[in-house]
Amino acid sequence: MKNILVIGAGLSASTLIKYLLDNSYKHNWKITLGEIDYNKALKKINGHPNGKAIHFDVFDDIQRHNEVSKTDLVVSMLPSGMHTQLTSDCVKQGKNMVTTTYISDQIMAYDSEVRKAGVLLLNEIGVDPGIDHMSAMRVINNLKEEGAEITSFRSFTGGLIAPKYDNNPWNYKFTWAPRNVVLAGQSTAQAIINGIYKYIPYHKLFSRTQRVNVPDCGEFEAYINRNSLKYRSIYGLENIPTMVRGTLRRPGFCKTWDIFVQLGITDDTFTLENSENMTYHDFLETFVRVLPDLNLEQNVAQYSGLDEDSMPMYRLRWLGLFDNKRKIGLKNATPAQILQQLLEEKWEFEKEDRDMIVMQHQFCFIKNGQNKRIHSSMVVEGDDNTHTAISKTVGLSVAIAVKQILTNKIKLTGVHIPTKKEIYQPVLNELEEHGIKFIEEEINTEEFNKY
Amino acid sequence: MKNILVIGAGLSASTLIKYLLDNSYKHNWKITLGEIDYNKALKKINGHPNGKAIHFDVFDDIQRHNEVSKTDLVVSMLPSGMHTQLTSDCVKQGKNMVTTTYISDQIMAYDSEVRKAGVLLLNEIGVDPGIDHMSAMRVINNLKEEGAEITSFRSFTGGLIAPKYDNNPWNYKFTWAPRNVVLAGQSTAQAIINGIYKYIPYHKLFSRTQRVNVPDCGEFEAYINRNSLKYRSIYGLENIPTMVRGTLRRPGFCKTWDIFVQLGITDDTFTLENSENMTYHDFLETFVRVLPDLNLEQNVAQYSGLDEDSMPMYRLRWLGLFDNKRKIGLKNATPAQILQQLLEEKWEFEKEDRDMIVMQHQFCFIKNGQNKRIHSSMVVEGDDNTHTAISKTVGLSVAIAVKQILTNKIKLTGVHIPTKKEIYQPVLNELEEHGIKFIEEEINTEEFNKY
Repeated sequence: MKNILVIGAGLSASTLIKYLLDNSYKHNWKITLGEIDYNKALKKINGHPNGKAIHFDVFDDIQRHNEVSKTDLVVSMLPSGMHTQLTSDCVKQGKNMVTTTYISDQIMAYDSEVRKAGVLLLNEIGVDPGIDHMSAMRVINNLKEEGAEITSFRSFTGGLIAPKYDNNPWNYKFTWAPRNVVLAGQSTAQAIINGIYKYIPYHKLFSRTQRVNVPDCGEFEAYINRNSLKYRSIYGLENIPTMVRGTLRRPGFCKTWDIFVQLGITDDTFTLENSENMTYHDFLETFVRVLPDLNLEQNVAQYSGLDEDSMPMYRLRWLGLFDNKRKIGLKNATPAQILQQLLEEKWEFEKEDRDMIVMQHQFCFIKNGQNKRIHSSMVVEGDDNTHTAISKTVGLSVAIAVKQILTNKIKLTGVHIPTKKEIYQPVLNELEEHGIKFIEEEINTEEFNKY
Repeated sequence: MKNILVIGAGLSASTLIKYLLDNSYKHNWKITLGEIDYNKALKKINGHPNGKAIHFDVFDDIQRHNEVSKTDLVVSMLPSGMHTQLTSDCVKQGKNMVTTTYISDQIMAYDSEVRKAGVLLLNEIGVDPGIDHMSAMRVINNLKEEGAEITSFRSFTGGLIAPKYDNNPWNYKFTWAPRNVVLAGQSTAQAIINGIYKYIPYHKLFSRTQRVNVPDCGEFEAYINRNSLKYRSIYGLENIPTMVRGTLRRPGFCKTWDIFVQLGITDDTFTLENSENMTYHDFLETFVRVLPDLNLEQNVAQYSGLDEDSMPMYRLRWLGLFDNKRKIGLKNATPAQILQQLLEEKWEFEKEDRDMIVMQHQFCFIKNGQNKRIHSSMVVEGDDNTHTAISKTVGLSVAIAVKQILTNKIKLTGVHIPTKKEIYQPVLNELEEHGIKFIEEEINTEEFNKY
């Protein structure tokens, strides 16, 4: 019998827990689900004979120590900042640990200790990061084995609303943490394209996008993620001339979001005096250079270099940003908080909605003296409000990895992310059985635009 | 006999020390000048019988304590972050202290202790801050005494090159810390105009300027300083509908500087890989969306929405930003550091150059039912390379205040900035004797543009 301790029963843990419980008979697993909110854990376990819900406080040193000591493997679904001590406990007690969060220098420093203990500390095994690493490395290693020279790698991911439920003019709903969406991109993006470094400041990020076509899913646009450069060494492509990672949105989203960036209303660094009693009209007015003979809509259009009847202006009107009646009602709020409040209302992911995760890797390479280009794309839709695309892609990646570790198929020790074949191969193979798969296509067109 | 301890013999201390030594006979002063660089202090004292140079380390607790104990008044010309402990010593030992740096909450907290000791801790008595406060408060208090209601206050200051030495296409040279100039404005500017708050993000700051005319000095443009809102309470104008503070440059400077901001080359938050071996051409290229059929100049012009033969593009060419031969030579440098290196060479303030400080306060007010507008302007040029406009305006303000304190004309105790009549009146009066004076003019035009 093996004991698995899962910490955190948030949204993205649903599919993970279901998988572990479903497979518990076959593999003789006991699953303990620890949550600060006990009832949430209880609901997820739902009386399963191999599952147990416990109230768990990750900052309770004694409880944390005890629970870790009783288990064979710990899965943390907590945000990265919250499981520092949990990781330390696993290392000290020589327990396997699986997380979906980004590896840090602090975590990397555990490597030799973890190796000595003969266990595995596996991080970044969700969807992004997670499936992106695994699917990219599979293509990269295949191409290398075929003797190809990879000259360009662009990788794009988006968490979006499934087409059937895509019924607002932004073609976007919050399927993921709203605050992260509002603050996205607020540090200089770094990439390399044709051997030339590209540094893109926040105020240019959303106007310098790239078109992305995904088979059977239509057209998207992508803006560059924070630091693409570091993925050269992570993926073993140190000298590749083009390395770009980006986020997908439906066409037009970025250019409209750029209006917010230009105005400055995504700013989270200061609070507004009297924000509580302002209307959204008042709020917007503080960010525009006001020409006195124009109304606010005309001023915003003029300031943004847009026609009043253009699609971006329609999207702003649809949000209610020109409303001069309703008060904001938030005290001493930052612009970002004020914007987020409105977007949460307008971009609400409703009970009957389904989300969608879209991922595409674009590789250019030279094989047998010929320039080639392939796109490898994944589209996953949520099943329902619980087993969302995010919950499925994250949860199944974690769960399959856990199974591989506990059944001794993955024998690696030390601190890792899933870039090694020993990890990604079995996980990707089983993900396919769950409908999470990549379609590869050869492309004959030239490289798209240059950011 | 009174002892004065001056700490710091940097550029802006020259006129201060000269004044104190010149006046030492009349007032029976002994001046001790402490500097970490002893020879620098020795040179400034220049053998004067009432002066003494000492090697002084502000972080040496014993020396600091001893020197403070021997004196009647301490003047700190150190940067604000460096005299925290010195201030604390003055407070504990009950000594008067004068600084030119911004008051902080930490300093404010000393108020009751300083009051009990019966001494004065006077801050922000240089030029900006300093003369700006004093000259503004004189007009404000006069207007209030006349029963006027002040509806708008805009205040602008610039440290520039004197017209006779203004011989480059930017109409600018570094008369003050280059790093501060390169990083200026990198937080959201806050002001209020006609009762509407104005929040201006960095990437709009240098395109949203205001024209400023200064009598006998010509036209300038002003961009808004960081937080103008707090000056409402500082100046006793809590409910004023318009409060703007800004920095002056010659026309065209800001719009060209905005190209740098838009490109992202004033960014100080990340370092460039291989910056050492790049040319300025390579450097610039990393920030532009490159269209392959254009050369870099054409790409920059196109990206910035400019004609290749326009004045801003000429200024860029004049700086040598398109040079593809000379290496940058700075290892792991930030964009801001790379830009600063080039500007320091091109905007060098040379030995024979003279600087200039320009200040203008613009007041709108209602008096006897009539709308009025006055501008109060000051222009000061440097005498030579030592007694620059900055050294004169800063040094004389400090020195005159010191004299007023030691001769008991200023009797205030506690923590202050020079907004009280008891301080600003004698200082402004004597500054006039040194040619540092404001010209007031009534203006008949409407308010200028609205930012």
